[in-house]
Amino acid sequence: MKIVLAPNSFKESLSAPDAAAAMERGALRARPDARTVCVPVADGGDGTAEAIVAARDGEWVELRVQDALHRPVTAKYGLIDGGDTAVIEMARASGLWRLRTDERDPMRTSTIGTGEMMRDALDRGAKTLILGIGGSATVDGGLGMAAALGYRLLDEREGEIEPNGAGLARLRRIDSGGVHPRLRQVRVMVACDVENPLVGPQGAAAVFGPQKGATPAMVNELDAGLRNAAACWREAFGADLLNTPGGGAAGGLGAGLIAFCGAEIHGGFDLVADVAGLDEALRGADLVLTGEGRLDEQTQYGKAPAGVAKRAKRLGVAAVGLGGSVSGEMSALYELGMTAMFSIAPGPIDLNDAMTRAAELLEHTSEQVVRLWRS
Amino acid sequence: MKIVLAPNSFKESLSAPDAAAAMERGALRARPDARTVCVPVADGGDGTAEAIVAARDGEWVELRVQDALHRPVTAKYGLIDGGDTAVIEMARASGLWRLRTDERDPMRTSTIGTGEMMRDALDRGAKTLILGIGGSATVDGGLGMAAALGYRLLDEREGEIEPNGAGLARLRRIDSGGVHPRLRQVRVMVACDVENPLVGPQGAAAVFGPQKGATPAMVNELDAGLRNAAACWREAFGADLLNTPGGGAAGGLGAGLIAFCGAEIHGGFDLVADVAGLDEALRGADLVLTGEGRLDEQTQYGKAPAGVAKRAKRLGVAAVGLGGSVSGEMSALYELGMTAMFSIAPGPIDLNDAMTRAAELLEHTSEQVVRLWRS
Repeated sequence: MKIVLAPNSFKESLSAPDAAAAMERGALRARPDARTVCVPVADGGDGTAEAIVAARDGEWVELRVQDALHRPVTAKYGLIDGGDTAVIEMARASGLWRLRTDERDPMRTSTIGTGEMMRDALDRGAKTLILGIGGSATVDGGLGMAAALGYRLLDEREGEIEPNGAGLARLRRIDSGGVHPRLRQVRVMVACDVENPLVGPQGAAAVFGPQKGATPAMVNELDAGLRNAAACWREAFGADLLNTPGGGAAGGLGAGLIAFCGAEIHGGFDLVADVAGLDEALRGADLVLTGEGRLDEQTQYGKAPAGVAKRAKRLGVAAVGLGGSVSGEMSALYELGMTAMFSIAPGPIDLNDAMTRAAELLEHTSEQVVRLWRS
Repeated sequence: MKIVLAPNSFKESLSAPDAAAAMERGALRARPDARTVCVPVADGGDGTAEAIVAARDGEWVELRVQDALHRPVTAKYGLIDGGDTAVIEMARASGLWRLRTDERDPMRTSTIGTGEMMRDALDRGAKTLILGIGGSATVDGGLGMAAALGYRLLDEREGEIEPNGAGLARLRRIDSGGVHPRLRQVRVMVACDVENPLVGPQGAAAVFGPQKGATPAMVNELDAGLRNAAACWREAFGADLLNTPGGGAAGGLGAGLIAFCGAEIHGGFDLVADVAGLDEALRGADLVLTGEGRLDEQTQYGKAPAGVAKRAKRLGVAAVGLGGSVSGEMSALYELGMTAMFSIAPGPIDLNDAMTRAAELLEHTSEQVVRLWRS
């Protein structure tokens, strides 16, 4: 019997690798003779690098970079395939989580730290860069990232602009002469689950700007700035990125990565699952356990457990979802391929207790599921 | 596929029949083609009559009787087998739940109402009486019950004593002349899970007296009274009931039923399960769902879900336990025959919400179990 453990993280209580380990302990208590494979997954946001590094037995690189406000911080990214592939989460350097609420200011924040991580990976010889771009503090169209990679971003007087939200409107010309020599040789893959275009009412500034500190006036200024950057990209790279789905992700970093790095945009879960080797793990398996903090009516829309269930169904494997909480109408998830779903709550319990005890409860419920399954 | 639904009650939120119905709805949502059989169970306490009446499609008899303090109340008992068998819970008439805390007084309380229900069943022609004796407010050795059935309980001057705790010490002679003519023709079966003898440090007065309002002085007086009653029983019926296991149940009603009615003492769950026809239902079944409010380390000791699991194992049926809460070391329950156990809690939830939503949550979890099982 082969059992795959493929959970997402349980937010604020268990990382995906820790959740997979807890599930594995439970499964092995129920069936000590089972063959188990842990493939922690993610949906492109928080935990993406952790899931991939764990699934592929990679390693971490720590380095000093600038946060979104140019302050020095220590961040890390993952290397897998013996260093051939780097897995970089933009939020590790340029994330909103690093700022106090009163520090949020999308005119000043920059993706420069993300670019510094990418540059470090290029220096180390990585051939593929995988980027998770959730959780950004920025609306800079990737200008900071580009500057870190060697692009010169020039204003109408050929002076270098500040690579941040305020700089977007001043950009006139992009000089690629000093760009990192390996940038055009590598494949850049972006895990992205939003469909928002770069500009307009559904764009990066209008939809995501306010949570990053943008006032209504800033939203207008940033939107115009991104539109200006798109004109410069067309001029420099020949690409029209105004309406590209996902271009508005991470404050326009999505479009910026396409423009400056020739990046491909992928669905977050599918990219992670492909890199982590989920299908290979599922082949020949009998059962897969997945899950995350909440399983509810939103789960069907691109969340990791739904993605696991879909792939499991395609490969004829039964999928069971475990959640910190489970609620709502489940029929769409059944359709996708989820056989059954259980909460790990052991009875009436408050949220804090449940989170503190998450590993133990997940192990216990996994044990019960495997005990029951084909008993 | 045949699925048996055999839960105990979920205390204060779902009766056993309602719990079985919720499980059945969930099972049929998962497998609309399944054959289902509801056999609500009980352990001889609260809900015993309800479970048996539901399982055997019986009916209820309502009647006016006296409560433990001789106040008129309406109580009910069940009739099954077309009236051949009566199912009587002593607590319906003589239960502690009917008294305010400050009314508890085991010197004055009496099982007379229980005897009135038995008499009514005899009048209606019942051939078997099944008694659940949990929850009593009394320590009268069954004197009240005996008086209601026509026994004359006489003091040393041949005057009738009050049939209550205080009367025990005054009893000298039992006159069976006026006893109900059908009493010696019927079989009386008592569902009883305690092993306590009538008297002594583990006896009815010492162990259960205090919760019924006995002061330490009363405990001594009642213990001596029960000892005196046992001497009178030996005189009248030839039986020595001082050390009979279970004689101390329900304030000595256990011993009193043996003495006055020739009753047999049975394990609570087993008696209910036999009468309800659990084994017949389990024969040819694939899966049985059981459960109660709590599943924990105590469950293995004679609780209904453990009993269901044991019988299921004997008959080769997989058993799954569902509880309002599930906790503690489970290996003994696995050994007994429980395949797996799940809480019905959908996530962090408080006790009141969980109890209010018990039917819905039980239905949902039952659906998940049946979906998973041999999926």
